[in-house]
Formats: sequence, C-alpha cells, structure tokens
Amino acid sequence: MLRGAALFVSLGHMLEELKREAYEANVALPRHGLINLTFGNASAIDRAHGIFAIKPSGVDYAALKPEDMVLVDLAGKKVEGRLNPSSDTPTHRRLFIAFATVGGIVHTHSSHATAFAQAGRAIPIFGTTHADYFNGDIPVTRRMTAREIAGAYEWETGNVIIEKFTGDKLDPRDFPAVLVNRHAPFTWGLTVAKAVEVAVAVECIAHMALMSLQLAPELPRIEPELLAKHFKRKHGPGAYYGQAREGRDEG
Amino acid sequence: MLRGAALFVSLGHMLEELKREAYEANVALPRHGLINLTFGNASAIDRAHGIFAIKPSGVDYAALKPEDMVLVDLAGKKVEGRLNPSSDTPTHRRLFIAFATVGGIVHTHSSHATAFAQAGRAIPIFGTTHADYFNGDIPVTRRMTAREIAGAYEWETGNVIIEKFTGDKLDPRDFPAVLVNRHAPFTWGLTVAKAVEVAVAVECIAHMALMSLQLAPELPRIEPELLAKHFKRKHGPGAYYGQAREGRDEG
Amino acid sequence: MLRGAALFVSLGHMLEELKREAYEANVALPRHGLINLTFGNASAIDRAHGIFAIKPSGVDYAALKPEDMVLVDLAGKKVEGRLNPSSDTPTHRRLFIAFATVGGIVHTHSSHATAFAQAGRAIPIFGTTHADYFNGDIPVTRRMTAREIAGAYEWETGNVIIEKFTGDKLDPRDFPAVLVNRHAPFTWGLTVAKAVEVAVAVECIAHMALMSLQLAPELPRIEPELLAKHFKRKHGPGAYYGQAREGRDEG
Amino acid sequence: MLRGAALFVSLGHMLEELKREAYEANVALPRHGLINLTFGNASAIDRAHGIFAIKPSGVDYAALKPEDMVLVDLAGKKVEGRLNPSSDTPTHRRLFIAFATVGGIVHTHSSHATAFAQAGRAIPIFGTTHADYFNGDIPVTRRMTAREIAGAYEWETGNVIIEKFTGDKLDPRDFPAVLVNRHAPFTWGLTVAKAVEVAVAVECIAHMALMSLQLAPELPRIEPELLAKHFKRKHGPGAYYGQAREGRDEG
Repeated sequence: MLRGAALFVSLGHMLEELKREAYEANVALPRHGLINLTFGNASAIDRAHGIFAIKPSGVDYAALKPEDMVLVDLAGKKVEGRLNPSSDTPTHRRLFIAFATVGGIVHTHSSHATAFAQAGRAIPIFGTTHADYFNGDIPVTRRMTAREIAGAYEWETGNVIIEKFTGDKLDPRDFPAVLVNRHAPFTWGLTVAKAVEVAVAVECIAHMALMSLQLAPELPRIEPELLAKHFKRKHGPGAYYGQAREGRDEG
Repeated sequence: MLRGAALFVSLGHMLEELKREAYEANVALPRHGLINLTFGNASAIDRAHGIFAIKPSGVDYAALKPEDMVLVDLAGKKVEGRLNPSSDTPTHRRLFIAFATVGGIVHTHSSHATAFAQAGRAIPIFGTTHADYFNGDIPVTRRMTAREIAGAYEWETGNVIIEKFTGDKLDPRDFPAVLVNRHAPFTWGLTVAKAVEVAVAVECIAHMALMSLQLAPELPRIEPELLAKHFKRKHGPGAYYGQAREGRDEG
Repeated sequence: MLRGAALFVSLGHMLEELKREAYEANVALPRHGLINLTFGNASAIDRAHGIFAIKPSGVDYAALKPEDMVLVDLAGKKVEGRLNPSSDTPTHRRLFIAFATVGGIVHTHSSHATAFAQAGRAIPIFGTTHADYFNGDIPVTRRMTAREIAGAYEWETGNVIIEKFTGDKLDPRDFPAVLVNRHAPFTWGLTVAKAVEVAVAVECIAHMALMSLQLAPELPRIEPELLAKHFKRKHGPGAYYGQAREGRDEG
Repeated sequence: MLRGAALFVSLGHMLEELKREAYEANVALPRHGLINLTFGNASAIDRAHGIFAIKPSGVDYAALKPEDMVLVDLAGKKVEGRLNPSSDTPTHRRLFIAFATVGGIVHTHSSHATAFAQAGRAIPIFGTTHADYFNGDIPVTRRMTAREIAGAYEWETGNVIIEKFTGDKLDPRDFPAVLVNRHAPFTWGLTVAKAVEVAVAVECIAHMALMSLQLAPELPRIEPELLAKHFKRKHGPGAYYGQAREGRDEG
C-alpha cells in the first residue's frame, strides 16, 4: 500500500511537472512574438503514462496559469482539468501517436510561416540558418478534402501531416515542423521547450526565405554538401555544436 | 423620489462603467501596436439608454483617463464630457444605429490593413486565421463621392459602409470589420473588447494576406468547406472553440 | 542694472527651456523607433533671440543629457556647449532661416521613409493618414551635384530643400517634411515636439505607401476632395479635429 | 619574482576585461534584435598576447555570464574556459590573423542581411546611411566548394572571406563587414563594441536596400562624390563627425 501511495505521489508530482512544462512553453509563445490573441498552443507528453498536458481552449495567455493545463490521454480522454482542452487537441494527439520520438508539440499562426502555409508552398532551404534545423525544405501538406473537413477535422489535420511524412519518407527528427496547407505551422521536438525553439526558428527562416525570393525569384536551394554539413553539425553522432550533446535532440 | 434617486445612481454607475470600458479599449490599441500618434478611437454603447462613450478628439493616448471619455447619444448630442468627442463620432453613431447587434466599435489606421484600404482592395480569405473571424473576404467600401466628402463627411463614411453591407447582403456578425476605401479599417463586436480583438486579428490577417499574395500572386480563396468549418467552429450554435460559449459572440 | 540682470536671468532660463525641449525631442526619436545608433537629430529655435539648441554630434542617445545640447545662432556661431554640434547643423540652420514659421526640425534615417529617399521617389498620397499631415505628396529633392557635395555640403543640403520648395511653390506649413535624395527625411513644425510627431507620421505613411504600391502598382493618388477635406480637418481656420485648436499648428 | 607576479596579475586583469568586453558585445546582440535563439557570437582580441575571448557554443543569451567566455589563442588552442568555444571560432581566428587592424568580430543571422547572403547578392550602396559605414557595396563571398565544406569548414569560411578581400583589394577598414554566401554577415571593428555597431548598421542598411529595390528595381548606386563625402565625414584624417575623433576608428 505504501508503495501504491508513493507511486501515486510520484505520478501526481510528475503530472504537475508536465503541466508546468506545457505552461512554460505556452507563455513563451507570445513572448517570442509567435502568437497574437489566442492563435496557438503547446503540449508536452509523458510517454511512460501516455498522458499529455495541453493549453485550454481560447484562454487569454496573460491569464493562463500552470493549473489551467488540461491532461489528456492518447485515447483522447480528458484525465484532469476544469477547462476544455484546445480545439486542436486531436491534432496533437494524432502526432504524438505517430511520431514516437516527439515529447512536445507547438502550434502557432506566426505571420511569415503562415503566409507560406496559406500560399501552399514549402519553405525552400536557402541558407545555413534553415539547415541548422531541417534536413531540407520545411514541408507543406496537401489541402484537405471536403470529406476530411466535414469529418473529425482536427484529427484529419494530423492525418494529412502523417500522410506527408509517410509519403515522402520524412523522419520527424530531420524535419521538426510542417506547414498545414491553408492553416499554419506545427513544430515538435524531444521536449516542448525544443518545439518552442523550432517554432521561433521556423518563423525566422520563413521571413528570410520570403525576402530571399524577393531578391532572387529563381534562387536555387542550398548545396547538398552545405545542408549536410550544417544539419549534422547540430544533429546526430557527429554533432559538435553546443555543450556535451549526446545523440540527437530533435523529436 | 427614492426610486428616482436610485435610478439616477444606477444610471450614473452604468455610465462610469461604460466610460471605463471605452477607456480600456482605447488604451489597448497602442499597446497592441495598432495605433501611431492619435490615429484611432474606440467606443462602447449602452443600448438600454442609447448612449455611447467615445475617445475625445486628438488627445494623446498616454495622457488619456477614463473620465476623459465623452458620452454621446444616438441623436448625436453630447450628454457628458469636458472635451470634444472624436471627429469620427458620426461614423460610430451611424454604425450603432444601423448595426443593432454591435456593442462596441474600433477604428485604427493599423499599417497593413490600411495598405489594403488605400489600395481599395478587399482582403481575400486565404487561410484559417481569417476564417476564424470572418465568413469571407474583409470587405472594402467604394470610394466616396465629392458630394459626400463635402457634406457630413464622417456620417457619410458610415453610410458607405452600410451601403456595402446592405448591397452585398453582409451580416455584420459574419463580417465584423470593413475597410473604408482610401482610409482605414473599422471593426466591431458584441462588446468593445471584442472589437479590439477583431482589430488585432484584421491587422494580422492583412499582413499575412499581403505576404501570401507576394508568394502566390494568383492564389485562390480558401475552400468553402474550410471557411465554413473554421467560422462555425468559433461562431453560432455549433461552436466548440473556447470555454462554455453560448450562441454567437460577434456583433 | 536690475533690469539687465533680470533680462539675463530670463534669457538663461529661456535657453535652459530650449535645451530641454530639444533634448526631449531627441530622446523621443529612438523611443518611437525612428533612430538606430546615432542616425538623427532634433533642434528647437528661439525666434526672439535667433538661437537654436541642437544635439551634439555622434553622442549615444542613451547617454544624452539636456545640458549636452549645443546652442548655435543663425549665423552659425556656437553660443554655448562643451561638445560639437551635430554635423547636420548647417542644414537645420539653412531651414530655420528660410522657413520663418518653423520652430523645430527633426532629421531621422527612419527605414521606410529612407527607402523612398534612396530611391529618389516622392511618397505618393494614397490615403487619409497622409492627408491628415500633408497637402499632397511628400516631396523629394533632386540629387546634389558634385560641386555641392564638395562644397559646404550640409548647407547645400538645406539649399536643395529650399530650391524644391521655392521651385514647386510649396508652403512648408502644407508640407512639413521632405526627403533628401539618396539621404533621408527632414521634418518640421511650429514646435520641435510637432516635428517629432510628423517624423512618426512620415515613417508610418511611407510604410503604408510601400505596401499599397505592392498591392496596386498603378494606384492613383487620393481624390483632391478627400485630400482637401482631411488636410483642412486638421489645419487652418476650419479645423475641427482635436481640442480648442486656434489657427494652424504646422510649421 | 615580484615582477613576474605583477605581470601575472596584470595579465589576469586584462583577460577579465577582455572577457567582459566580449560578454557585453554578445548580450548586446539580442537587445538590438540581431539575434534569435543562439544564432550568433562576438569576440574581442588582445593583440599584445594574441588571445581572444569568444562566446561559448550554443549557450542561451539570457543565461550567459562574463566568466562563461572562452579564451582562445591565435593558434586555436583553448587557453581558459569550462565550456566549448563557439563552433564559429575558427572563422574568427582566421579573420583575426588576416585583418591585423581588427579588435573585435561579430557574427549574426540578422534577418535582412541574411536574406541578401542567402540570395548571394552584395548589398548595393544606395544612400548615405550605407556610405557612413562602407566605402562601397557590402561584399558577398563566392559559394564554398564541396571540398571546403567537407574540410575544416569554419576555417575555410574565413578563407573565402579573405579571398574576397584580397581578390577585390578591399581594405577591411573601408569594408567592415561581409556576407558569407548562403550563410549570414560577419562584421568587425577596432573594438568589438564597434563591430556590434556595424552589425546594427548592416541590418538596417540591408532592410532599406531591400525596400529601395522594391521601389526602384533598376536603382543605380550612389554617386561617387556623395559616397566619398559621407565615408570621409566619419573616417580618416578629415573626419568631422562626432567628438574629438583621432584617426580612423574602423577595424
């Protein structure tokens, strides 16, 4: 019994940590200028228990508190929380199920990345800033069908993302973001803090790509050697950027 | 007599609240980066008494106080206030009369939305951010005639807005903003706080539309199913975004 | 003698006020995002004594103090100050001499206005924001000749501005700013605080004009009636914008 | 012995100062909006001892402390520091060796300058803001070869910069910045504080050049006389901008 109580305490403690982690990520989004109003959300998962913490729906970031985070399991059942979870929860859930290496997911409507998403264009890889995070273009999904939209829309949003990654054989660790066509970016990482970092990078990369296209409309992609060099400098066993990195830290 | 005094107290209290509400909305505008200098104003109406509170004309936002708000009735008579009301007051009044569901109005010269207004272009609906707020393009009025400009200009500004909504059979609850040709946006909502939120959204939507057009000059509008899905996700009886929403909350 | 002493005290007090006024205007420039590094300066003139206060050359805005302002007379002689006046002082002096109604001058390299100056293009009047401040396009000077550049360059900069205004019969009260070709904007007003306000407006107007041109490359200018209406709403005997305005308040 | 101890104290003190100087420059970068995440670094050299202080690799700017700076000598040996130096250290070292007049180097991925770098375009000199800092276009290197990328990549990055300056006979004091093709800008100066100032200027110049090209796609460069006037106004024996400047202060 003591053991069960200890486990219970430990689980409770872990979930408090998970909610705090999700909370910190959510409030970081407006601070980084990635969020206007309530356009966005972040979630963090505990893989051992299959439970993730996510922002409640439509709550103002200024008023958000760690205890407002909603706990949901991978079957979609609300485990804890007074409030409704984000309406985008099924998309997060779908991605957590499909991408086993992902520990946190961020969704924003950051302006420049969303402009590419609305235009239905992948973000072409034009420089080393991009290559520090992605092993190629930032992919864009196909448009959703009327049937998908009329159905379980947010779940289907996750499905078109996975279809893109499966169809193009993209590893979510090599491509830690996607643009949902007509919608906006989703990013992910080993932790939700890393997913926030990628969201900042994606917005910055999108801004620079837009301007590079303005300066050189026919600009070719970065050379494969430079892409490989920069991506591997930060990722994988040969990484030498940063301090004491062990293995890959992307989702 | 006691009853009359109580009513008087209650009316006085209500008007103080109205002025505070209008004040909060006005000072939120520069905080959201929607206002430079004194280009803009917000108003809140009390429908029971047919009185609205509006920003005084040409007063610096930094110096503004709740008691500076000017009270005006729907006949255009100043009911209370030391200062002159905004020169745009007749436009607000015209809209309050025509749009019975509107509780608050905001006018800004926010940069990206104003660029569309100056160019005389509606903002095409390219993505879900837009569809979360509008049931189609953000409309633009026709240009005003020399006669309208020479006449009761600000009142006529209201008239061309209403002409657009009447002519195109637009419900102000489905389209909570308009671009006045050559001028700038007006937004509205059930409350003035909601009108501020829409003003933030309009600026953001305009910025993203401008960039989407740069990336894809012939970009078609969003699919009707996706528009319907997103707009209804937030509006109307089937809304499921946010917490405990009952009915529509747009003006 | 007492009278002389009183006069002296009064002059000293007046000059302290002038320096404070110039100081306040200078430090407002980076706060409004109009200045990067030390690119810019503001000056205020006392017409009774023909003395103006101006920013010292190349001093960091963060370190600036009211007592650092340099006093210069209209003959170009330094009247007071430990530091060298701004290298642009002869341009300010030239304008103070030619434009008798001007009480303060501001020079910035604000990004969008400078882009028009570099391109040698006047800012076309596309909307009411512009018409609230200017009675037409924001003019641009011709390029300077090699002789002018090799000569008293900053004084000649003033001369090409005056040549533009004289040649095109522009009243500096109707056009409180100019773009110096290849260089950047100068603005002015009845007071230096007003010149700061115009500098903010010019940058905002330039940004919106750039985007309007992107949306509609062949966009015609605003209708003359609308221009007249907006400009007169804020300027001249028929002005009805703001509180208790008497006469025109532009330089 | 006393002499040796005094020397040791003096060297220790000097290196603390050097680390503080490098630290101040590094934390200035995000404050000026030049850095997102950890994209960038600054270094300061002590020429007498051939040692430079540089940012540690991949450390968050918010957490950075002066004592985190890493000391490296010109042979590439780490002299002091718990952390790994920036992965760009060999580029800094290469430049310190080649450019004897340089006391500090800054590397950023500032958005507008990086857009030009990604597009492989030099920043054309269109106005006096640019001419205040550069004696012509801001140069861009050629793209790096597969062999250079596969080799000592960061060292080779320094080499392509030097190849550009040597090949085009550019004096690093006249051109205190370069765009590395596909990558981003490096800037330098007599001190690292000056290199930060140049980094701010480069970003601002790039933004204005982008917009000038949008307004006038065939815009010719600034007139040689105006370039010479502005560059010499701030640099060299005839400089008259600022306070008591002696000789040139660019690296």
